[in-house]
Amino acid sequence: MNNFNKISVAGEARTELHDLLNLTGAEVSVNALPAGASVPFVHSHKENEEIYAVLEGEGYAEIDGENVALKAGDWLRVSASARRRFFASTEKALKYICIQVKANSLGGYTMSDAIV
Amino acid sequence: MNNFNKISVAGEARTELHDLLNLTGAEVSVNALPAGASVPFVHSHKENEEIYAVLEGEGYAEIDGENVALKAGDWLRVSASARRRFFASTEKALKYICIQVKANSLGGYTMSDAIV
Repeated sequence: MNNFNKISVAGEARTELHDLLNLTGAEVSVNALPAGASVPFVHSHKENEEIYAVLEGEGYAEIDGENVALKAGDWLRVSASARRRFFASTEKALKYICIQVKANSLGGYTMSDAIV
Repeated sequence: MNNFNKISVAGEARTELHDLLNLTGAEVSVNALPAGASVPFVHSHKENEEIYAVLEGEGYAEIDGENVALKAGDWLRVSASARRRFFASTEKALKYICIQVKANSLGGYTMSDAIV
């Protein structure tokens, strides 16, 4: 495997990076939900923690029945077992990334994992 | 632990999300390097794969001595052992996120980890 991979993501509705970047510790998707649209199914996960970042627009997540407002700059951690669904606002598209990682998989990080 | 945590990240130079969001499978930092600035040390990692996304601006990464141009929309995987350093361009700040995950930690993902 190369020491790095790079791709450019433009305005696609959804781009999944795992295979494009040869990721081994995460799946990352880059998503654009048009205004008024939603991801049509509620889901939870067996093992994976999800981390969402809102890049542009606004909308909300429904998490275990609770509505959580989302706007650009927001970051959200969702536990594996939580049942979730995402909605763009009626006025603005919701552009967001979703990072899937195995819960409790991280060991050291930043200075405790770095070699400087 | 709650089923979710949410925070909002504005224009700070660096925000580390692990403790703010109670992450267990990743560390994520949101970074802004001013025009002409760089991260002043070359580093590699013991165990962690890093995934970088450029949110705004442009610059480049130096990875094992190779210069890799970076612009908004680019995504980059860097192997743990690769020696890396990041530079903003002289004209524009480089806003980027860095996701640290343990290499080879991901099991199933998306449909193979989902409960719908």
